[in-house]
Amino acid sequence: MRKTGRHFLQIPGPSNLPDPVLRAIDMPIIDHRGPDFAPLMARVLTGMQALCRCAGPVIVYPASGTGAWEAALVNTRSPGDHVLMYETGQFALQWKVLAERMGLEPEFLQGDWRSGASAAGIEARLRDDTAHTIKAVCVVHNETSTGCVTDIAAIRKAIDAAGHPALLMVDTISSLGCLDYRHDEWGVDVTVGASQKGLMMPTGISFNALSEKALAQSKTATMPKSYWSWEAMINANRGGYFPYTPATNLFYGLVAALDLIDEEGLDNVFARHARHAEATRRAVRAWGLEIVCRDPAAYSASITAVYMPEGHSADRFRRTIFDTFNMSLGAGLSRLADKAFRIGHVGDFNDLMLLGTLGGVEMGLEVAGVPHSKGGVQAAMDYLTAEAASIQPLRDAAE
Amino acid sequence: MRKTGRHFLQIPGPSNLPDPVLRAIDMPIIDHRGPDFAPLMARVLTGMQALCRCAGPVIVYPASGTGAWEAALVNTRSPGDHVLMYETGQFALQWKVLAERMGLEPEFLQGDWRSGASAAGIEARLRDDTAHTIKAVCVVHNETSTGCVTDIAAIRKAIDAAGHPALLMVDTISSLGCLDYRHDEWGVDVTVGASQKGLMMPTGISFNALSEKALAQSKTATMPKSYWSWEAMINANRGGYFPYTPATNLFYGLVAALDLIDEEGLDNVFARHARHAEATRRAVRAWGLEIVCRDPAAYSASITAVYMPEGHSADRFRRTIFDTFNMSLGAGLSRLADKAFRIGHVGDFNDLMLLGTLGGVEMGLEVAGVPHSKGGVQAAMDYLTAEAASIQPLRDAAE
Amino acid sequence: MRKTGRHFLQIPGPSNLPDPVLRAIDMPIIDHRGPDFAPLMARVLTGMQALCRCAGPVIVYPASGTGAWEAALVNTRSPGDHVLMYETGQFALQWKVLAERMGLEPEFLQGDWRSGASAAGIEARLRDDTAHTIKAVCVVHNETSTGCVTDIAAIRKAIDAAGHPALLMVDTISSLGCLDYRHDEWGVDVTVGASQKGLMMPTGISFNALSEKALAQSKTATMPKSYWSWEAMINANRGGYFPYTPATNLFYGLVAALDLIDEEGLDNVFARHARHAEATRRAVRAWGLEIVCRDPAAYSASITAVYMPEGHSADRFRRTIFDTFNMSLGAGLSRLADKAFRIGHVGDFNDLMLLGTLGGVEMGLEVAGVPHSKGGVQAAMDYLTAEAASIQPLRDAAE
Amino acid sequence: MRKTGRHFLQIPGPSNLPDPVLRAIDMPIIDHRGPDFAPLMARVLTGMQALCRCAGPVIVYPASGTGAWEAALVNTRSPGDHVLMYETGQFALQWKVLAERMGLEPEFLQGDWRSGASAAGIEARLRDDTAHTIKAVCVVHNETSTGCVTDIAAIRKAIDAAGHPALLMVDTISSLGCLDYRHDEWGVDVTVGASQKGLMMPTGISFNALSEKALAQSKTATMPKSYWSWEAMINANRGGYFPYTPATNLFYGLVAALDLIDEEGLDNVFARHARHAEATRRAVRAWGLEIVCRDPAAYSASITAVYMPEGHSADRFRRTIFDTFNMSLGAGLSRLADKAFRIGHVGDFNDLMLLGTLGGVEMGLEVAGVPHSKGGVQAAMDYLTAEAASIQPLRDAAE
Repeated sequence: MRKTGRHFLQIPGPSNLPDPVLRAIDMPIIDHRGPDFAPLMARVLTGMQALCRCAGPVIVYPASGTGAWEAALVNTRSPGDHVLMYETGQFALQWKVLAERMGLEPEFLQGDWRSGASAAGIEARLRDDTAHTIKAVCVVHNETSTGCVTDIAAIRKAIDAAGHPALLMVDTISSLGCLDYRHDEWGVDVTVGASQKGLMMPTGISFNALSEKALAQSKTATMPKSYWSWEAMINANRGGYFPYTPATNLFYGLVAALDLIDEEGLDNVFARHARHAEATRRAVRAWGLEIVCRDPAAYSASITAVYMPEGHSADRFRRTIFDTFNMSLGAGLSRLADKAFRIGHVGDFNDLMLLGTLGGVEMGLEVAGVPHSKGGVQAAMDYLTAEAASIQPLRDAAE
Repeated sequence: MRKTGRHFLQIPGPSNLPDPVLRAIDMPIIDHRGPDFAPLMARVLTGMQALCRCAGPVIVYPASGTGAWEAALVNTRSPGDHVLMYETGQFALQWKVLAERMGLEPEFLQGDWRSGASAAGIEARLRDDTAHTIKAVCVVHNETSTGCVTDIAAIRKAIDAAGHPALLMVDTISSLGCLDYRHDEWGVDVTVGASQKGLMMPTGISFNALSEKALAQSKTATMPKSYWSWEAMINANRGGYFPYTPATNLFYGLVAALDLIDEEGLDNVFARHARHAEATRRAVRAWGLEIVCRDPAAYSASITAVYMPEGHSADRFRRTIFDTFNMSLGAGLSRLADKAFRIGHVGDFNDLMLLGTLGGVEMGLEVAGVPHSKGGVQAAMDYLTAEAASIQPLRDAAE
Repeated sequence: MRKTGRHFLQIPGPSNLPDPVLRAIDMPIIDHRGPDFAPLMARVLTGMQALCRCAGPVIVYPASGTGAWEAALVNTRSPGDHVLMYETGQFALQWKVLAERMGLEPEFLQGDWRSGASAAGIEARLRDDTAHTIKAVCVVHNETSTGCVTDIAAIRKAIDAAGHPALLMVDTISSLGCLDYRHDEWGVDVTVGASQKGLMMPTGISFNALSEKALAQSKTATMPKSYWSWEAMINANRGGYFPYTPATNLFYGLVAALDLIDEEGLDNVFARHARHAEATRRAVRAWGLEIVCRDPAAYSASITAVYMPEGHSADRFRRTIFDTFNMSLGAGLSRLADKAFRIGHVGDFNDLMLLGTLGGVEMGLEVAGVPHSKGGVQAAMDYLTAEAASIQPLRDAAE
Repeated sequence: MRKTGRHFLQIPGPSNLPDPVLRAIDMPIIDHRGPDFAPLMARVLTGMQALCRCAGPVIVYPASGTGAWEAALVNTRSPGDHVLMYETGQFALQWKVLAERMGLEPEFLQGDWRSGASAAGIEARLRDDTAHTIKAVCVVHNETSTGCVTDIAAIRKAIDAAGHPALLMVDTISSLGCLDYRHDEWGVDVTVGASQKGLMMPTGISFNALSEKALAQSKTATMPKSYWSWEAMINANRGGYFPYTPATNLFYGLVAALDLIDEEGLDNVFARHARHAEATRRAVRAWGLEIVCRDPAAYSASITAVYMPEGHSADRFRRTIFDTFNMSLGAGLSRLADKAFRIGHVGDFNDLMLLGTLGGVEMGLEVAGVPHSKGGVQAAMDYLTAEAASIQPLRDAAE
């Protein structure tokens, strides 16, 4: 039977795509070696620099975020290099597996999948590494599998406090365009990003933003690379070109998305995500369910992962909601499989879409026979109403 | 400041447009005198016959619904003709004004704007008209300004009971594709419809569906007509043509919309609208507000009009919601101006979109300082949850 | 079998639609009574004033051009009024038939379907009409069925020379946005236009541009009218509204089209159409075929109608081209039926599209076994090449 | 100044994109882990198998064609492996550079950039390699920089004749969907393809099609790999998933493109490309210019590279055409830089688009002052007309 109305795509990305972005990618393709390409690429690159708050080069790949993970490693590292990674959740784990596959020696600091990476833990490990065999520290800013945020400025401080020269590489795939992020100010060496979450774009584009130090190391790093080569990309980009065929139509969309972000203002984007995350958590608590992230300081603005009550299948619950209410929720992954579900409140979103989302969860709990208290949507409305009252005067003043 | 996320267009039409309809109208235009046009038009005409449940001709105008009102009159009537109309609300009133402007003599049976047209009242008036000076009875099936439905089968029975030869003309602009409607079975002579509500289409297309009796009268009717001429249209359509340039791109969309309706099944379309209307009324009652329609038998499936508490401006309330929550609600019109607002739950819609809608109203009442009780969204969720439980087995069986 | 590549829609309108126009109409519909509608309508109205070069009101109908013909008459005339029309071709004829159907008394000055309307003929007839029973003179600026242009300034002069108070009404359906046109300067009282030719839009929108005199007469004209009523439209527009539901998505497209015209510059638009028309005529002459228009001063910039050699069916020829080369040409109409075909070189067009078009005609002549000389495309190329050489310095200077 | 009409994108890819493909990528994104993804992916994979004529697995990467080159090597090879490549032109060269960058030892058989790879040359080299140190033979099926085709069946025969176990890897980036290609029948081990040419898609998707032998070697190949890993991809695909986030919206487009190809029929697709290539070469000869490919058996169906007359800049010529006629032609690359230009006649194309293209070149030669004879377009028309006459009966029979 046809599902009516708009699908609620409340996974932790890809996020609901705004119409101007979709219409943009639907325009005829142009010659990527012709005169119209260079200004298009320039807009993309400067826009991404602004978004990453990075004065150095940003590399844009026609690839998934996973490709940008790989790019960060193969450009800066040599075979057998030791890298320190932190197990914040499934995506940190996948990055580690990738590093192993590529022939590096990742060391994994154990985490509990319920908080961000521990700056203290990283500092302690680096202090021990007096020989400086650790070449890079890799952390996930916003762990998409758990909804826990790592304090990147604190990680930088930890590295500096340990007097350690390791690069700092940060996965911002589900934080860029959702949470405050500052590549240069926080001393990040390689930022890894992707298009399909805060950037409100289809999948197919991913990024590296670089520090001078990372760039310098890439000159001597010996991992084999071609598609991911920063050098080839930077050289070609400098002339207004691409080292191979770019995903031109996705570039159109990216320009449209960057324009939307500019129009809203980055600080407003962050405040909106934070507001929706808080409303979501209030709903979760009202239902009597448990939030996976147990450190309030680490709550994610883009994703909330929620435990199912013992004995209830999260996947059956999600399927009920998909079939009954035309909404997709994110699955629990790996050790959270079938035990948790994830609510995405990311990208092009608003209060009423959030109420529909939370209403779908609350009704789904009832329909699926999952023990819970009512009142989640009500709690969210109470919070959003109070917030609206405080936002309105600002809005008025701005007009 | 940019409004984020999807706008909630909860006016009583135009309704939220499905993506396949929008993408369809975005295709290159074809030669309306070339070989590809006739099959396109045939799909439109047979689809509209199925939707109106009318075996006779359907006329498709590149025009607003107002044009189809005019068409119904100028094709069947002669200057100075007496027609009986029933004041269900603002749209009945506008149709009457149109009849006056066109040189007819409409008689208006007074209504209270809180119920459908009275079959008994019409029967009484027709019984009085022993000279049969009344040439047509014109009623609005679903009065868009009040959310009150008229029982068309009962009106037909009333006309027959009075032994009166007047034509029965029915405005279905906000009921077609939302509420059960049966042109042939109910003995309607001219059905007036439009594209932008239950048909999930942009504005710009409107319809007449005809009985044989109406068609026969059109042969002798002397009102001047050209653009609206049924005869010219039927003759051209018969050859696979149009008497003037058709709105081809809107035809593409109409085909896409008819396909979506077919896929869902017309009975499911009606049941869905009825369910959302009931959920909406439960929310309104929980808020302690008053529904404009006071006859439960006349409740509309596509629109709910709601009185504001005394002393509160409906228009200011709607503006607050527009500014704060990115949702459009329908205004009260004419005697309901600023006193009522209207919630559209029409077209391509689902449970979670409705929760967002009702959540926007409930939060708007709070933000605008309108006295109300909480719990409207909760009441809607309770109802929808119960309904979902009863629908699911049917859905499973269907797959 | 699938027809590959882009269809060549070389009928005299609808014209090939630019992508930005199609993408614009594919955006979600908005509330036409909400705050975002008034600026949209304002852009449409001022843009149309600029295009018509009319300082007075422009009326925009959700209707075909035929509706705008009807509107021009019913707003200014009373039943039985005498109007003078000129038979330039099939569209002049249809306008006359429309006038008859609406209860007016059109008098038809005979033309030969091979030239524009004769100013002298009109002047003579008006001089005879000393009683001023003729209330309006109606002419077609660019007769779409023949490709002949009427000199509107000359018609105005003729009316003035005759000292006659008749209104001047002009159909610009296939000239607006193609040929120079000046509503105010040329003393036109009602301009009739439509969206699907020079405006590069889908069908479904049509226009009236008004003089003060026309507006004044509309106050006392007694033809019945409602949908077409200028008064209702002007009153509603003044408040930022529409008297009934507007074709909002087509408005989006119209704004996009007006932006494209602004970007090109109206004079450049006219020069481009003139250049393509001249290239087309050179090709026709090289083929040894005869152009329908026999007055070089009346050649149309948007359409070229061409006679088939005696004994050859124009319709079979067009069908061969449709089937073999994926191109639509315009049919000969009425007395030109099957005797002539029409080439549209109108709207969003360029030199290479024209070469494809002319190449399709030239190859079609060969495939269909129609006697002709080769060299039509070559003649067009020779001309366009020479023109390109003379345009380039201007282009360079402009950059 | 605005360039009007449709841009002629006559580079050797990306090709002109059909509207149904563009509209498809413009639909809302879905959950790639939800129930609707597996059928989408299945359609893509079986469609690509049919297109490659490969019964084994096809791998679909969210990446440019360059990525698929890299994937072919890293999945089958170990560091330092010796591979034999053939210098057909710039793309063969780039593939070789990629192999070097990745740490392989490519040996390059010299070619003249004017013909396909020599089967005899390859056979001789392989016979010399009695130790079987050569692990793979890599050739470009249709060399995009020169418009020369290599006979892949002959290469396979050469390898077999030499009794050599090397894998056969073939780049089909500009041949797939344009020229006959048979992965299984011709004994290809890895086919490398991309979306933006014969597949009529935007850039951003590329492919590997695999033989059993290639798959078997991938189990022991030790080049580091993760993003490009066949194993990870095949395992995930088997369960209806993707190992990382897929480019879902490009998948929508790919399904639309595969549907278009199915509708036309693969043999018709090939015949059409061959016909347009022959027409193009006749035009080139008529102009008195020289085709880069000097072996008629190696003429490409999708691209024609053409030498400029001595002393004339190909790049200035292309720029003149871009500025004057709104057409993009392909540049000469590397040793052909500024000496040759390339005409793409690839993808969604038809006879009249080709005439526009050739007309643009012919007029461009004149405008740019390049010595040439007229008559190129005429020669193409003569040929296409003759072909049309012979195609029509087949077409009629098919209907």
